[in-house]
Amino acid sequence: MQLIGREVQLIRYPEGAVRPDDFRVAEVPVRGPGPGQVLVRNTWTSVDPALRLRLARQAPAGYFAAFPLAAAMDGIMTVGEVVESGAAGFAPGDSVWHASGWRDYAVVEAGKPALSGLGTLTRLDTSLAPVQCYLGPLGGMGLTAYAGLWHAASLRDEDVVWVSSAAGAVGSLAAQFAKIRGCRVIGSAGSDEKVAYLLGELGLDAAFNYKAGPVAELVRQAAPDGIDVYFDNVGGDHLGAALAVLRRWGRVALCGAVSQYDSAGPAAGPGDLFQATANDLTLRGFRGSSYLHLLGEMQREVAGWLREGKLRYREAITEGLPNAPMALVKLIAGHTTGKALVRIG
Amino acid sequence: MQLIGREVQLIRYPEGAVRPDDFRVAEVPVRGPGPGQVLVRNTWTSVDPALRLRLARQAPAGYFAAFPLAAAMDGIMTVGEVVESGAAGFAPGDSVWHASGWRDYAVVEAGKPALSGLGTLTRLDTSLAPVQCYLGPLGGMGLTAYAGLWHAASLRDEDVVWVSSAAGAVGSLAAQFAKIRGCRVIGSAGSDEKVAYLLGELGLDAAFNYKAGPVAELVRQAAPDGIDVYFDNVGGDHLGAALAVLRRWGRVALCGAVSQYDSAGPAAGPGDLFQATANDLTLRGFRGSSYLHLLGEMQREVAGWLREGKLRYREAITEGLPNAPMALVKLIAGHTTGKALVRIG
Repeated sequence: MQLIGREVQLIRYPEGAVRPDDFRVAEVPVRGPGPGQVLVRNTWTSVDPALRLRLARQAPAGYFAAFPLAAAMDGIMTVGEVVESGAAGFAPGDSVWHASGWRDYAVVEAGKPALSGLGTLTRLDTSLAPVQCYLGPLGGMGLTAYAGLWHAASLRDEDVVWVSSAAGAVGSLAAQFAKIRGCRVIGSAGSDEKVAYLLGELGLDAAFNYKAGPVAELVRQAAPDGIDVYFDNVGGDHLGAALAVLRRWGRVALCGAVSQYDSAGPAAGPGDLFQATANDLTLRGFRGSSYLHLLGEMQREVAGWLREGKLRYREAITEGLPNAPMALVKLIAGHTTGKALVRIG
Repeated sequence: MQLIGREVQLIRYPEGAVRPDDFRVAEVPVRGPGPGQVLVRNTWTSVDPALRLRLARQAPAGYFAAFPLAAAMDGIMTVGEVVESGAAGFAPGDSVWHASGWRDYAVVEAGKPALSGLGTLTRLDTSLAPVQCYLGPLGGMGLTAYAGLWHAASLRDEDVVWVSSAAGAVGSLAAQFAKIRGCRVIGSAGSDEKVAYLLGELGLDAAFNYKAGPVAELVRQAAPDGIDVYFDNVGGDHLGAALAVLRRWGRVALCGAVSQYDSAGPAAGPGDLFQATANDLTLRGFRGSSYLHLLGEMQREVAGWLREGKLRYREAITEGLPNAPMALVKLIAGHTTGKALVRIG
């Protein structure tokens, strides 16, 4: 009997805002695994802001490749269950992650690196946390927040920390990790509802809606004596505001620039790096996948925080694979609180 | 007998380009030193690109204060000879540096910090090098190049290094320090004559005139495999070009942005920091004066390189205190090769 599976395909590179009809759902035959391969039935797949960068004829230099048209979209994190295995170390029933997401079934080659190593086929310990947590706090999101604070930003206990997009997948982890570390933490987000979530549910020390005024003024109100660390998920005016309020020897972890992902042409920079020179500031770009050696340590520590109730984690679940494009559109538009996931179902 | 000295005063804040007639030379009475003070006859005074930032009603936040109008300009490095001393540890005939430049005589308080500590009254060891070297390779310029490479850029032996404004005071030191370290060094400057100086006299591995084409293309031609370190004296398009050619884990020492100093309004940024995130790049702003603890070590090392002929050092000497403003105008316009100095005479 021929197995048939659905997959989401990009059919046109969006100009300006992404629309759901830039994609289609195709039904394709699924072959069995060859030697060294496993067949996985995907159960949850990830929706990430950075996917936007690959919905273009040419992705930014140095980044992952653009998605091809009318083909399965490779390089999107997914968890699932092994159905059939031709590879040593994997057996039917195993929970795994890999990078062939946005489809029902995937044939994955064991040991073949994907997504800079982060998406290489890996067995998951579901006793630590529910399997979809590996697409959030126990996966690339957690690693990004962890590496960004501990390494890119060289976080110290006494730091005053500002996290932008603090209601987002990475931001909500970074903000809470810094709180657990004992820092004073300020979060920003794009709606009053998200601000209430930051203060009420995540317990941040201060939070603001960046649409309420000039960002630099809002940060200054929240941190009259300045900040030591800025965890940047936004870029543009947010980064410019951070440079203006960072104290001497301050640090910026450059995690991404979601404010720019939807625009054509060169992204707006922070405008002025003079403050970096004047105040001995360090801006450090980083990718979670550059810190794979910290993955196990991060997973043990973060799973502990989840079990102890120290870490709040909200999922924005979209039901059904065909709705994955809409989930991405909503995410880029800023209408998502917590980690965006699609239950393939 | 009343001692009379000349001093250069700013009489109007320039709008746009600085002009010599934004200044005047005044003759003022010079009083004797009080307790804890010394009277210094200045012999050489410094002309630095960053002075431009203080020729404004309001200097950038976090930077040194703006110069007041119709008064002596404080906070400019100078060397001279003690004429009369009321302070322990200083005697007539001592060579010293301090920060009350652009004037014939200064009464300086011993131990009082100036220019973030770099301009505090200090005795100089003229057996190491001629006294005006303390305004160049053995002073703030040397410390800036030294701290920028060794600390801000974490220089490694195998790095490919690009230094902008490489014919300038700090740039020519940074480029040569990196060569002495064994790195491959590319320099850029704003004229073919300066490029010839970089290749012929400083012995850099490659050099280009940034006016000859898009900067990013020129850097790529000089370093087809990319660079590891960019020592930034320019900002703007130069910094943007560096971000495009820096290899993974690359580093930028943000020393200054002379391209921006003459413009009103916010300075142009590099445009896009996405490459920093994609390639794990670090941009570190720094001021030489933040590394005062390295001053003695730097002076001993650099004086040795000067004696051994490993380090070429060119001075752009302007004769006579009244010509200091013109020297600054020429420096900002890019018509200076080597360290700009005024012999007060």
